[in-house]
Amino acid sequence: MVRFSKSINNLRSSEIRDLMSLAIKPDMILFSGGMPDNNLFPLQEIDDIYNNLTEEEKQIAMQYGPTSGIPELLGTLQEFLRKKGLPVDNNKLMITTGSLQAINILTKTFIDPGDTIVVENPCFIGAISAFKSYEAEIISVPLKANGIDLDQLRAAVNDEKQKPKFVYLTPNFHNPAGTLYSVETKLALIDILKDKNIPLIEDDAYSDLYFYEEDKPHLTTIKAMDPKGIDVCYTGSFSKILGPGLRLGWMLVPEPIYQKAELIKQAIDACSPSFTQMLAHKFVSSGAVYDYIETVRKEYKIRAEAMVTCLRKHLPQEITFTAPRGGFYIWLDLPKHIDSTEVLKRAIDKGVVFVSGKTFDPHGILNNKMRLSYCNTSVEKIREGIPLVAEAIREIEDFN
Amino acid sequence: MVRFSKSINNLRSSEIRDLMSLAIKPDMILFSGGMPDNNLFPLQEIDDIYNNLTEEEKQIAMQYGPTSGIPELLGTLQEFLRKKGLPVDNNKLMITTGSLQAINILTKTFIDPGDTIVVENPCFIGAISAFKSYEAEIISVPLKANGIDLDQLRAAVNDEKQKPKFVYLTPNFHNPAGTLYSVETKLALIDILKDKNIPLIEDDAYSDLYFYEEDKPHLTTIKAMDPKGIDVCYTGSFSKILGPGLRLGWMLVPEPIYQKAELIKQAIDACSPSFTQMLAHKFVSSGAVYDYIETVRKEYKIRAEAMVTCLRKHLPQEITFTAPRGGFYIWLDLPKHIDSTEVLKRAIDKGVVFVSGKTFDPHGILNNKMRLSYCNTSVEKIREGIPLVAEAIREIEDFN
Repeated sequence: MVRFSKSINNLRSSEIRDLMSLAIKPDMILFSGGMPDNNLFPLQEIDDIYNNLTEEEKQIAMQYGPTSGIPELLGTLQEFLRKKGLPVDNNKLMITTGSLQAINILTKTFIDPGDTIVVENPCFIGAISAFKSYEAEIISVPLKANGIDLDQLRAAVNDEKQKPKFVYLTPNFHNPAGTLYSVETKLALIDILKDKNIPLIEDDAYSDLYFYEEDKPHLTTIKAMDPKGIDVCYTGSFSKILGPGLRLGWMLVPEPIYQKAELIKQAIDACSPSFTQMLAHKFVSSGAVYDYIETVRKEYKIRAEAMVTCLRKHLPQEITFTAPRGGFYIWLDLPKHIDSTEVLKRAIDKGVVFVSGKTFDPHGILNNKMRLSYCNTSVEKIREGIPLVAEAIREIEDFN
Repeated sequence: MVRFSKSINNLRSSEIRDLMSLAIKPDMILFSGGMPDNNLFPLQEIDDIYNNLTEEEKQIAMQYGPTSGIPELLGTLQEFLRKKGLPVDNNKLMITTGSLQAINILTKTFIDPGDTIVVENPCFIGAISAFKSYEAEIISVPLKANGIDLDQLRAAVNDEKQKPKFVYLTPNFHNPAGTLYSVETKLALIDILKDKNIPLIEDDAYSDLYFYEEDKPHLTTIKAMDPKGIDVCYTGSFSKILGPGLRLGWMLVPEPIYQKAELIKQAIDACSPSFTQMLAHKFVSSGAVYDYIETVRKEYKIRAEAMVTCLRKHLPQEITFTAPRGGFYIWLDLPKHIDSTEVLKRAIDKGVVFVSGKTFDPHGILNNKMRLSYCNTSVEKIREGIPLVAEAIREIEDFN
């Protein structure tokens, strides 16, 4: 019998994966995935970019690059981030193979088995997997309307018996909860973390996808606030603003953390794909990224509003949710006795799929929630699918 | 003070990295890197492939794919491997982000901190980093002319006090030693590992790059021998037969190992780049890969023979080496009292760079060896650079 690492025992094939395999059925209405719509990719721009590459640029694209990323993309991404107000000059930037890899590398950088970390509940499933794969002890703090529960965060951070190695948060358009932290919550949590020697990993995969101009004051990232006394490790992604198939993300982190993270990256995959880095470089440096973000932002807003309208029309009244102000997701709050996996089974029978709540609970238990994605489905399909979801919920309610 | 993971203490920025940064100087003659020559990449073929992709294929290229790889590439790669005699039907294939990631994932799959593994000495630097990052205890066994020292391998494998979790070998055109295991050594080590419940990781990044048809009987991989009673985890790469900038490798492993490895991959980067997978799929399915391998095989043979000729002409007689029969490298054996780092410093002054021996010693000590790569340098530059290397060696010999 082969002897596996004990750390594998923490990991399991998640319900969402089984769903994804179900989702291959051609007629299924997909509210499950966190991927952009295939029809929204900037294929024409990528064609133009590829066909204008010089021979030398194509050679760079085919070759190994530096661990931190090809200099071309590092330069243009720095400018992109500088425009968002991020402190690029006194931090180091690393291109990663998707932003999940950035989170994975940072986890490896800080965590020994049994170390404590603090995360939101609910939490991004990929991050949960990364944390568990390194045998972190996860303390989860509930997410409220304006952000993480500050009292519980303060208690967790000040617990000297199990002082957390880091705090992981997604303040802008949380996956799955859709939450946008208020600027007051951001300032309050900075105050809580100040001078505690507990780095903050700020996952910012979605902040470009805001729907309402008036939210801008709340969108400033914690990294951009450049708070003294906290090592903020900022992560971002090209997955939502270009294409996840490029597998490109990044981390912007203080130099001492970068030095360690680079050693880890060298042991994981040596460098991220130069080929897709070259395409991303041109996409940003040409300015095409700004027009594209504008386009998808409008489209996702239309879809989000369509889904909200449908949900308000069809859902039983006792089901609550917050209308999203950006990002990809709506997070439904079901009555306590409703198990969303049961709802899901009914929904699949009806030809529609979403993700059950417990998938995003770091402890894998809380299941009276469910995540609906509107990113990958047309308005027409949203109008067709939401009544089926509502029907499935009603059937389980009646059954109970 | 931020508290890092203890595992980082095992990792350090290697001498080769400092070299790589030095190597940016435009006029430097590079015998250091393990990358293909920029001038050898199949740029025309990639142009044709890209420009013949359908819109649907481009959408797949931009989108997340399954953790194991896009079905298109999995299918064509299976055929590619089947032609090499590999047992693709009773094993599972996973596309990885370079073959280093395959090694990293397998290490994570098997290793808890302090677990013992067995490797060759010398050993591929990327693998050493992966092993150390997971705090493996490395037992190294010397590499001899026909492969690993079998007596020492047997002793290590049968040490019940610290039974190794796996054995990691590069039987075909070893990096850095260039060694091609004889078929007799392969059979003998199968016998040693049989029924020991110790998986073998067989790193096969170079076997397509053989120079001599008469070596073919020795080139059969251990995985292709499909030995009963050993879980062979076979890893391979597109880096040497297409381009490392695509970051594509693979593992072909028994199903139970695959199941665990997939959970790890999900926590590392979710999936490998679909964009470059689509290009690799077309490169293999069109048959272009076979012509390309033929071309580079011939070119590397010319360079290897040119380097051997130069070395024989210029090296002091007491320096020995084995003429390579494939792959990228020549491994020089210096007199015991010669420190290759000292030689390297002199060489850099003269405008030529290689990699010192200790870089490839899992214990970081043995330094009377050095690795010369001929993969990334023209015959002209080889003729210019080797006399400078010989000069540097002579200066250090005289100095001692």
